[in-house]
Amino acid sequence: MRRGATLKFVGVLRRSRSLPRSVSELDIFKEYCQGLYKLEDFSHIMVFYWLHLRDNQAHRSTVRVIPRRHHGAPEVGVFASRSLSRPNPIGFSIVELLKIENCKIFVRGLDAANSSPVIDIKPYIPRANSFPDARAPEWTLSGPRT
Amino acid sequence: MRRGATLKFVGVLRRSRSLPRSVSELDIFKEYCQGLYKLEDFSHIMVFYWLHLRDNQAHRSTVRVIPRRHHGAPEVGVFASRSLSRPNPIGFSIVELLKIENCKIFVRGLDAANSSPVIDIKPYIPRANSFPDARAPEWTLSGPRT
Repeated sequence: MRRGATLKFVGVLRRSRSLPRSVSELDIFKEYCQGLYKLEDFSHIMVFYWLHLRDNQAHRSTVRVIPRRHHGAPEVGVFASRSLSRPNPIGFSIVELLKIENCKIFVRGLDAANSSPVIDIKPYIPRANSFPDARAPEWTLSGPRT
Repeated sequence: MRRGATLKFVGVLRRSRSLPRSVSELDIFKEYCQGLYKLEDFSHIMVFYWLHLRDNQAHRSTVRVIPRRHHGAPEVGVFASRSLSRPNPIGFSIVELLKIENCKIFVRGLDAANSSPVIDIKPYIPRANSFPDARAPEWTLSGPRT
């Protein structure tokens, strides 16, 4: 079995002073622009992006973390956390889709660093993706949602 | 800006005849096993895996698809679909966590090919990830949930 694979960046995240603070712009590269066709039929989308600032050996060797942004969180395994330092620095967020214009997706609520590369977009389908009664430990109830 | 990045596989999905059909086993490689610490505090997890059977130039050039498993679906952009053929063949599923034993995660409801490489695991946090009222087009209501 191979031990890895290659990602192609399909776009880049831009935060702009001309936009409200909660709004981000995902600039999808021209060759992938047709991939956005009918995405506007969805109110929410899943954004997969690359945590490029953590793409180095030290951050990618992390296996245990203390989620300090969540008050009272214990030490946990990296896969039990949303830590940005992880073996594959994949960022993931479910956000509100505002509009699409000229290969740019405008979304609300994406808390990612400027210039983060976009690696995938998928539609959010509540029937498949919504589990309001899922159990999570108490420390996830405080602090940021991610 | 770089145009790509490298993924490391952190485990592999195994379906086994000794398990019920709806149950899959995620074998996490030894060096990442500590990353599972306290994951059992969550009832549901997000599994990110690699659609290794689609990792070739033809499948990764797909920008428009017809989601045929969903009756009546129109042609849509690949990012408005859950198509397995996409620029980065990242599989994503939210599944029920059954138990963890010896670096193996047992989950229910993961519809992925045997031997798919695992690339990330994140906890499912309903406060951040559940949007039961999200809008999606009618074709997503029939057919498989993914």
